[in-house]
Amino acid sequence: MHVRHLIPCTMKKLPPRLLASTLTLIAAAGFAQTPPSPPPPAPGTLGQRMAHFLDPGNGAWTAQQIAAMDRIRDAALSDNYALWELRHLTDNIGPRLSGSPQAAQAVEYVAAEMRALGAKVTLEKTMVPHWVRGIETGALVDWKGMTPNTIQKVVLTALGGSAATPEAGITAPVVVVPSFEAFKRLPDGAVKGKIVLFNHPFDKQLAAQGLGGEAYGQAVVYRGAGPSLAASAGAVAVLVRSVGSIEYRLPHTGAASYDPAAPRIPAAAVTAEDADLMANLAAQGTVQMHLTLTPQTLPQVESYNVIADWKGSTHPEQVVIVSGHLDSWDLGTGAIDDGAGVVVSMQVVHLMKKLSLHPQRTIRFIAWMDEESGSEGAATYAADHAAEIKDHVGALESDLGCDHPTGITFAGAPALSEWLAPVARELEPIGATLLTPGSDVGEDVASVVAKGVPGFSPTQDSRYYFNYHHTAADTFDKVDPRRLGENAAVMAVLAYALADSSSPAPRAAPAPAQ
Amino acid sequence: MHVRHLIPCTMKKLPPRLLASTLTLIAAAGFAQTPPSPPPPAPGTLGQRMAHFLDPGNGAWTAQQIAAMDRIRDAALSDNYALWELRHLTDNIGPRLSGSPQAAQAVEYVAAEMRALGAKVTLEKTMVPHWVRGIETGALVDWKGMTPNTIQKVVLTALGGSAATPEAGITAPVVVVPSFEAFKRLPDGAVKGKIVLFNHPFDKQLAAQGLGGEAYGQAVVYRGAGPSLAASAGAVAVLVRSVGSIEYRLPHTGAASYDPAAPRIPAAAVTAEDADLMANLAAQGTVQMHLTLTPQTLPQVESYNVIADWKGSTHPEQVVIVSGHLDSWDLGTGAIDDGAGVVVSMQVVHLMKKLSLHPQRTIRFIAWMDEESGSEGAATYAADHAAEIKDHVGALESDLGCDHPTGITFAGAPALSEWLAPVARELEPIGATLLTPGSDVGEDVASVVAKGVPGFSPTQDSRYYFNYHHTAADTFDKVDPRRLGENAAVMAVLAYALADSSSPAPRAAPAPAQ
Repeated sequence: MHVRHLIPCTMKKLPPRLLASTLTLIAAAGFAQTPPSPPPPAPGTLGQRMAHFLDPGNGAWTAQQIAAMDRIRDAALSDNYALWELRHLTDNIGPRLSGSPQAAQAVEYVAAEMRALGAKVTLEKTMVPHWVRGIETGALVDWKGMTPNTIQKVVLTALGGSAATPEAGITAPVVVVPSFEAFKRLPDGAVKGKIVLFNHPFDKQLAAQGLGGEAYGQAVVYRGAGPSLAASAGAVAVLVRSVGSIEYRLPHTGAASYDPAAPRIPAAAVTAEDADLMANLAAQGTVQMHLTLTPQTLPQVESYNVIADWKGSTHPEQVVIVSGHLDSWDLGTGAIDDGAGVVVSMQVVHLMKKLSLHPQRTIRFIAWMDEESGSEGAATYAADHAAEIKDHVGALESDLGCDHPTGITFAGAPALSEWLAPVARELEPIGATLLTPGSDVGEDVASVVAKGVPGFSPTQDSRYYFNYHHTAADTFDKVDPRRLGENAAVMAVLAYALADSSSPAPRAAPAPAQ
Repeated sequence: MHVRHLIPCTMKKLPPRLLASTLTLIAAAGFAQTPPSPPPPAPGTLGQRMAHFLDPGNGAWTAQQIAAMDRIRDAALSDNYALWELRHLTDNIGPRLSGSPQAAQAVEYVAAEMRALGAKVTLEKTMVPHWVRGIETGALVDWKGMTPNTIQKVVLTALGGSAATPEAGITAPVVVVPSFEAFKRLPDGAVKGKIVLFNHPFDKQLAAQGLGGEAYGQAVVYRGAGPSLAASAGAVAVLVRSVGSIEYRLPHTGAASYDPAAPRIPAAAVTAEDADLMANLAAQGTVQMHLTLTPQTLPQVESYNVIADWKGSTHPEQVVIVSGHLDSWDLGTGAIDDGAGVVVSMQVVHLMKKLSLHPQRTIRFIAWMDEESGSEGAATYAADHAAEIKDHVGALESDLGCDHPTGITFAGAPALSEWLAPVARELEPIGATLLTPGSDVGEDVASVVAKGVPGFSPTQDSRYYFNYHHTAADTFDKVDPRRLGENAAVMAVLAYALADSSSPAPRAAPAPAQ
């Protein structure tokens, strides 16, 4: 999952989804072991609510369709298709940074796999950035109490899109500030020619409570606004403390954001441990740092959203999107962000084929390109398909890892909650019954959802997500096969429900243009 | 903490201490929050045991001396001396690899600090290895399903003492085996010219149960015997799966061991994630790896044990050792291994001065040199002080991190248990009352203890120790100030008790020479 570059978007978009997901998580803790509670009662009088409870009905679905949902759920849990696809994407193909050869290979691979399932595959061209990580080294070379001719190594990684230092690196004093407020209180000229470290600590307590999204939102603004703020004040490079809920000397990358009005200075994330070290030594006296970053920003390249339609039997023009993003960061192999989202979406189509299900509407698998580096794929889709959005009846994206889903987060008409109740009951055996309204169900479907299309995502346990997110440790082993199956079940049951209901899910009025 | 090179020693020496410490930990879990149980009853008839329970007496100490232990314990918990010393050692000085300039600086620094306390300081010369880490890179360059012209990065680190590859590295196929048994079943010539990966997984379940030492013992034998076993069969390099209880793409170093009869081939540890990746890809077809390691083995250098005596008031010739090892690995800054052991030992002398205590016997602080790379410091001490060992009345070492101590592990006469009971009662407020017999209380004091000197170490909670041990994440932040104080309290109360008792602690017969 990428977090938007600009502070207002970051603060506005990210936390609500994670906040909602994690609040419901607290209520749902332990679901995998203990029987889940029934879904929340429908609004109304006590009598109405009792009637609803005693005879919940099937809403928009026949008993046969409900039985199909049972089969889909059970098959999702026992079928290792998604797991093997994830292993191939992460181990055989590897990291899939926008514009990279591996991203191109992943496009070809996923397209071929979807063709093999019998889906109609389209590659939708989109131009994406092509940034290549280079050498990245950091070292403190002068500080109080140092041993002559030694260094203290600084573990860091360039932020995505970062500018480069000269090849031999730069050496400059470090100014450490804990916040924007502290930065603004510095005297004029205080950072001129220096390296600024924004040392805002990730709130691990919030993350442990399942509110990692809120903690992320508070910390990631420094990646968004820090580089240009420091550059405008004359800094020669900017560092941010890594965003993450655990400390294993692991730097956390993500897209840097540059204001066109400010110089583009090199930008990197240092680990929490290194930020602590620098803050301690800088409090004792001048600290000189040597920093080398040699990334390259190459010309944009042609890439693709992979679109694969499982054609609707009676309303093929009506579309339910099931999706994840195929690009990843380059440090790990993009297993939880967002290989998992892609493969659970692939599994939806696989299960339709395996169970010979042909819902009335089209289930459209999309492997989005470039979510991490600018969401060019999503923008292309919104533009290319503008005229068809009125026929989109639902948009699902999974992009918050692969831990236990406690239910479904939905964006759109409040009536969706009651409409979804029978679906939630089908997810009771996996403890995914909670229906949570939210404004953000995924970066790639955001513009479609803003046009009134009901949006959905599995409500995932995010307590451990920021241990691995955007780091070298985002690898295949971080995905628990059982949890992957649970997420596939949520996606597949919901996609089927949307595609085969007697009438489309309630639609919200489009959001006013901003 | 270092683990001895040879399998028999590793298997014999390490696990018992950790096993004992962790078994008692389970019994003691939650001590910090809840009142601890009374110490175990003395052996004897029920009547004797009841009498012991009702009127435990003070053993070898007067009421005044017991009151002094109270003051020592409370001062240890509230005094930040050890914490600040640790911060200086780790942040200002940094990693302290045997033979490095930082190790030399640390010797000077600790000696000066101990002089400032009024202790009599001696630098005891010892020759130590001087191995310097170089460039270390790993990459898979050919495997099934790869994207042309890409690599899969392999995160690794050279084992201490490793030989180097040529500067441009080597490229060779990888053979992955899960165990020595599997290695021995390979056909003749199967690893000739190849890179062998010993992929024995660390038993995380054991570690989570507090039995990390047992898991460590099972895994670390591959670092000990793997290099020469692979070399003897014609391998060009050897890799081991990192030893560690958690997976954050973090390689775990430690001393490689070479049999003089086999070629010295380059040896490195890959992370658990990378081992999984290589095992998966190698099961699909041939995997070619490029490996570059450019460490250097330089001539031995002169280094020192730092010895600081807090002279005994009536029996200065009788000695209680309090110690930790000053050298560390070079990836992190050696906070838990074993900066913490050094600074809690420094704190013992600091507290004697602060509380104006002058016990009858000498408290001898020792910051050992070279525990990680061959224990030359310990060998030098044993040789230089052979004639005085008869007057050593106790030897303490703290070298299992800095988590909550549940009591004292002791090595020597079984009667030590009853003798220690009043000391354990003094440690009740910090939940460190458990007295556990063990054979290993620290690598550096082992030879002294083998001669019959009672040996002791704090019994530390080791559940999280192998998350950080020998990795880049062994840094200052991993030490909890409260826990550091608890360990200082155990060391200081026990050292005082040994140094001021009415008669020396019971002594065991020396172990038969091996």
